[in-house]
Amino acid sequence: MSDTNNKNKDHIENDPSYKGLQVNSGISQPPSINPRIAERLKKNKRKKYTVDDYVKGILDGDRGILSQAITLIESSKFEHQKVAQEIIEKCLPYSGKSVRIGITGVPGAGKSTFIEAFGKHVTGQGGKLAVLAIDPSSERSKGSILGDKTRMEELSVDLNAYIRPSPSAGSLGGVARKTRESLILCEAAGFDTILIETVGVGQSETAVHSMVDFFLLIKIAGAGDELQGIKRGIMEMADLITINKADGNNIHKAQLARVQFENALHLFPQSPSGWSPKVLTCSAIEKTGIDEIWNAILEYCSHTQQNAYFEQRRSEQAKYWMYETINEQLKDGFYQKQSIKDQIPDFENKVLNDEMSSFVAAFKLLEAYFQDIKNKE
Amino acid sequence: MSDTNNKNKDHIENDPSYKGLQVNSGISQPPSINPRIAERLKKNKRKKYTVDDYVKGILDGDRGILSQAITLIESSKFEHQKVAQEIIEKCLPYSGKSVRIGITGVPGAGKSTFIEAFGKHVTGQGGKLAVLAIDPSSERSKGSILGDKTRMEELSVDLNAYIRPSPSAGSLGGVARKTRESLILCEAAGFDTILIETVGVGQSETAVHSMVDFFLLIKIAGAGDELQGIKRGIMEMADLITINKADGNNIHKAQLARVQFENALHLFPQSPSGWSPKVLTCSAIEKTGIDEIWNAILEYCSHTQQNAYFEQRRSEQAKYWMYETINEQLKDGFYQKQSIKDQIPDFENKVLNDEMSSFVAAFKLLEAYFQDIKNKE
Repeated sequence: MSDTNNKNKDHIENDPSYKGLQVNSGISQPPSINPRIAERLKKNKRKKYTVDDYVKGILDGDRGILSQAITLIESSKFEHQKVAQEIIEKCLPYSGKSVRIGITGVPGAGKSTFIEAFGKHVTGQGGKLAVLAIDPSSERSKGSILGDKTRMEELSVDLNAYIRPSPSAGSLGGVARKTRESLILCEAAGFDTILIETVGVGQSETAVHSMVDFFLLIKIAGAGDELQGIKRGIMEMADLITINKADGNNIHKAQLARVQFENALHLFPQSPSGWSPKVLTCSAIEKTGIDEIWNAILEYCSHTQQNAYFEQRRSEQAKYWMYETINEQLKDGFYQKQSIKDQIPDFENKVLNDEMSSFVAAFKLLEAYFQDIKNKE
Repeated sequence: MSDTNNKNKDHIENDPSYKGLQVNSGISQPPSINPRIAERLKKNKRKKYTVDDYVKGILDGDRGILSQAITLIESSKFEHQKVAQEIIEKCLPYSGKSVRIGITGVPGAGKSTFIEAFGKHVTGQGGKLAVLAIDPSSERSKGSILGDKTRMEELSVDLNAYIRPSPSAGSLGGVARKTRESLILCEAAGFDTILIETVGVGQSETAVHSMVDFFLLIKIAGAGDELQGIKRGIMEMADLITINKADGNNIHKAQLARVQFENALHLFPQSPSGWSPKVLTCSAIEKTGIDEIWNAILEYCSHTQQNAYFEQRRSEQAKYWMYETINEQLKDGFYQKQSIKDQIPDFENKVLNDEMSSFVAAFKLLEAYFQDIKNKE
């Protein structure tokens, strides 16, 4: 909705012939960096770390330095990016020793409360937990829990937990890349459980799924309509579905939903992991069912480590991100080129009016693009 | 299985130090062009048609000329491609007036028998049916029914039916493009019902789904294991699932499966078409349940034409294929470049050994690629 409005606004403001009223520019973005971190960063402003300082700090588990390094990853400045890549490269050998868990669910499923309860359970068992997010939408507050710390009161002050909001809005590919790089640094800093949260309405689930070992879908019981918001195909990614809010009068409904989902999952083909997805109920607010979920994750890890799927999938993911980045960049190079941007609407119209086949239009645009690259040496 | 054998064989034969027995080279591919068509083509060999001859012939419904035009589409020769594109462009305004139906199902689900029964039902109602296929695998005979005309005895001699096997093996993108172009010519030739068949084990379902109005999944009843071969996500594409082989002792099992699938489909989010996917039983061999399926398709068409989804989806598909072709070609240009091919294994290894992050590897390869393009003017 707001996205459309923005587009309209841009369109109008870019139109020099537009002499009408100025369109309201709306409220500003919430800060993309935790104010506490920003404060700390400011204090350290004059201290100029070398790459080795960063790496040592991260390996020592220094949360301040970890945060600053992630800020470098998130920066759009070229020199920051360069330093960030060197830090990542040096941290890579120390990364990988964690269980990476993706969490998704529609707004209202109780993700924030769940992460609070789940996170406290993990740190209560002696674990060290980092919570990251992928949320490329510009309407952060609508879905992502990480903007809403009030619901994660305990976890946000837990010294064994580290919470980092999603990188600022940008293309999904860019946001996902930054989150995956931050994950590497968190692992090098000794966090052994990584949660990557996303809001269950976009393309971001696929991105999260491609960087985690285990994918957890949070649902609530209802008359079937709770499914509306979830993108097709997400249920098939889940290694575990938990029906949250199984408390009070809701318990029976939640148990019924559990059986329904279990039956539905039986109809799906088996995952290459050899793991049969589980359906469990829980109440994040009453902190019940959380240990069963954690045990299921541990069970999954030992199962897939035994059959070598765990390592194999990690390797596939590393390759996937190399190829995915190449493909994204190839597309970006094309679609961001001004001459292509100028021509696309005309070709699209011709295709829609059956004046040109989709394929001829594509080939003509490609021809123009490569000619353009060659002409500029 | 046979694929692995071939790889081993190639490996051995390419090894100059190999002095052992020659490995059997196996049986040759069945002809990719219907021998009858090949015969007819040979007869017309000397007749050189102009683009306008082709277009007129197609619009007149001349099956011989239609077949020859499709052969031009499938040709890898540049001059054939050029003529083919002109023919397509002139046929475009006459295309689109059909219902395009995608059909998939694992080998053994009875696709060929189903298409025979379904096709005869369509022509029996006065319809004109074209059957195309997308099957980019090189092991055609394993899955694709169109290599196996013996099971389509009646349909293959029906004057209101036109059957064309899948374009010869190639990249999925290429095969899909050719099938979509052939579809345009078939429509211009007056076929009002287009079936596009694919075998339910690969990526090809997505390609088929992106060029049809209605997607039909053929299943058989069993102990759940019939799902094994179907790729994840395919069930979610289906507008109709039919449980085939609902005959003899199998009827009860098929009806049970129908209920199970119906329950499972309820758990999926609603399709943007506003259509609730149906589950029906049929017996292709006894020709029962076929009319219900055809009626469901007609119902779907009238439903989606009323809510404008039908036209909207067609437009989206035309755009999709323009962008898809661009994206495929951009990737092809990169990955087919020899200098990139040479470097990729090294970068991949570095990524797998944690010596380089996925992203740095990607950016280094891209840099090399664009440098290479610029250097060659």
